Amino acid sequence: MTKPTIALLTDFGLDDYYVGVMKGVITSINTNVSIIDINHNIPQGNIRKGAYQLLASYKYFPPQTIFVIVIDPSVGTSRKAIIVKTEEYFFISPDNGLLTYVLEYLGNDNIKIIEISNQNYILSNKSNTFHGRDVFAPISAHLSLNNNIEIFGNSINNIVKIQMHPIIKTKNFIKGSLFDIDRFGNLITNIPSKVFEANNIREISIKEIKLENLAKTYNDVKTGQILALIGSSGYLEISVNQGNAQNFLKIDYNDIDSLEIYCKF
Amino acid sequence: MTKPTIALLTDFGLDDYYVGVMKGVITSINTNVSIIDINHNIPQGNIRKGAYQLLASYKYFPPQTIFVIVIDPSVGTSRKAIIVKTEEYFFISPDNGLLTYVLEYLGNDNIKIIEISNQNYILSNKSNTFHGRDVFAPISAHLSLNNNIEIFGNSINNIVKIQMHPIIKTKNFIKGSLFDIDRFGNLITNIPSKVFEANNIREISIKEIKLENLAKTYNDVKTGQILALIGSSGYLEISVNQGNAQNFLKIDYNDIDSLEIYCKF
Amino acid sequence: MTKPTIALLTDFGLDDYYVGVMKGVITSINTNVSIIDINHNIPQGNIRKGAYQLLASYKYFPPQTIFVIVIDPSVGTSRKAIIVKTEEYFFISPDNGLLTYVLEYLGNDNIKIIEISNQNYILSNKSNTFHGRDVFAPISAHLSLNNNIEIFGNSINNIVKIQMHPIIKTKNFIKGSLFDIDRFGNLITNIPSKVFEANNIREISIKEIKLENLAKTYNDVKTGQILALIGSSGYLEISVNQGNAQNFLKIDYNDIDSLEIYCKF
Repeated sequence: MTKPTIALLTDFGLDDYYVGVMKGVITSINTNVSIIDINHNIPQGNIRKGAYQLLASYKYFPPQTIFVIVIDPSVGTSRKAIIVKTEEYFFISPDNGLLTYVLEYLGNDNIKIIEISNQNYILSNKSNTFHGRDVFAPISAHLSLNNNIEIFGNSINNIVKIQMHPIIKTKNFIKGSLFDIDRFGNLITNIPSKVFEANNIREISIKEIKLENLAKTYNDVKTGQILALIGSSGYLEISVNQGNAQNFLKIDYNDIDSLEIYCKF
Repeated sequence: MTKPTIALLTDFGLDDYYVGVMKGVITSINTNVSIIDINHNIPQGNIRKGAYQLLASYKYFPPQTIFVIVIDPSVGTSRKAIIVKTEEYFFISPDNGLLTYVLEYLGNDNIKIIEISNQNYILSNKSNTFHGRDVFAPISAHLSLNNNIEIFGNSINNIVKIQMHPIIKTKNFIKGSLFDIDRFGNLITNIPSKVFEANNIREISIKEIKLENLAKTYNDVKTGQILALIGSSGYLEISVNQGNAQNFLKIDYNDIDSLEIYCKF
Repeated sequence: MTKPTIALLTDFGLDDYYVGVMKGVITSINTNVSIIDINHNIPQGNIRKGAYQLLASYKYFPPQTIFVIVIDPSVGTSRKAIIVKTEEYFFISPDNGLLTYVLEYLGNDNIKIIEISNQNYILSNKSNTFHGRDVFAPISAHLSLNNNIEIFGNSINNIVKIQMHPIIKTKNFIKGSLFDIDRFGNLITNIPSKVFEANNIREISIKEIKLENLAKTYNDVKTGQILALIGSSGYLEISVNQGNAQNFLKIDYNDIDSLEIYCKF
């Protein structure tokens, strides 16, 4: 029998004890579990970034992995807490759009959604401000014991989705936007690699920069030069060899939603 | 048989290999152990913050968890190294006050204290600057093998305590101070929830701010507004909905010890 | 049978999902493994710092530990990916000098080097930008299943080395340089403790500071004063008691390679 995996993605940071106590709660219920941190430094309340990082990471985890995603600015209100079971995975999170990208990618066909309501599987004395510890962690641990989602609440049909940035295709170009900017300053767009397989793209432009070629590796250009390539998540990325494209283009992370990338035919 | 848990709380940060080698040492002695990070970003030498974060987190860990708390500005001097066994847990740390809040909370009645002296259970060639690796990690691993503290040294009766900030009650108010400020800028006071159950508090004030109500959740006020509520650790907290109370009140972390919070009758 | 250990040292940081998916990949191949983080905050592309932190940490891990070191500015180019087996350990990394210090310390006599070429043990659809996930993580997991390096590729005889800073001995002094500066601002030199056992050192100098004694502990000097001692990695360190020697001496981390430390007879 394989050991179950619980993967954590939160905005709790690493300067407090918050992630640690989630693991304490999980281990108190099931010691025979692998707990893996995806990332805890999602900026406070940034649901879109959390949704993207889940999309980019989930498929590298073992089947039956239980993902616990807690970016939860409405904690304590009437927002639901949910479990979504797909063919391969379980996702536990507040119902605020965090699963939008993953479910768009996986499709909504063979999924089952539970609204968490059974108080027997959450901590007594539940706080109003830390459901990562009091609700999501214990639910994940109990789920890891038996993989049965039915015990936690009733089925529901719909969950909250965030609006996805569209990819717009015209006669002359395909226009996309940014999913994320990573630690290295790589700009990760929402334009998938298949756009380049299906179209003859002659120019990629972002802000004042125009790039005529898709590079294979960072080192296809000289140190310090900007380039475009298909990044490790399968989407177009703008990078600087040995450098930082975010700094190169003077992009403030807060402006991420307004940036446009054009792939011209 | 359940797998033992070792939980680490230090000021070693995450920019060096220091926490990693502590885990290497533990795993070299006992591979069958769950090692959980509580927090490693306690500011250098801040015993009070470490003591609070231990208080806020310990009770969420499994019984028999071995806590290793290493904030150790006097490493290499004659300060003692201790193991404290309570009814449910083991605490290993330098004897410098790190256990003050936990033992205040648990009471000193059924505890046993050992001064670590047996050189057979620490690394040979012990350094004078890194007892996290050379003393506390190997002691925790050996303890996890048998839960017997007697082998590590002799019993002692007293340990060092830091002075706790008092909660002062007068005819007109209860005055407290700050335990901590977290990543979200929440101000965590030392005023426990029971103060609000036992008294009719009409106003909470901190710096120039006066609050007349205790909120249930962050969303009880508008985005960007300040509020008071009972936080997840069971103490009064001052927060800003979707924002940062520390920034809102322009509080420098270094001033944390001088801040006063008044709960007026 | 003991559980295998995989230890990770990278420059992927903790703000993205990169380390998390490496662990997802490893766990997908072998759930029965201890994954330990040495450090992920090596500055982007800083091979020298990675090489030092590996040197300072490896010997504290269990025999047969598989070290995965990924600081990989030439990812996607023709640089090799290698496995080095020493008497006690396995090291997996890009062939760019990361193992220089460790192999200098261990000697090159009883080591075996494999150039990774077998595509059966890496992820299909390998990216050109993230071999930590696509190559190094799966190789480490497969290696943890059987400890047989022969299956991953052919033997080679040489690997890339970075130039090491020499220790220069003259009639009047021994001159060294800095390996690293840690979170506490300690300056870690490349002058080993045996220099002090073999020579009568009368003065240690760095920048404008001259120190006449080697301290035993930080507390041998007053709070805020600078001192020299043998640090926990066995090399001469310059520190400030309860303070930060890097700030004290106004050292920019980028100048680390140009600093000189003199031990005068």
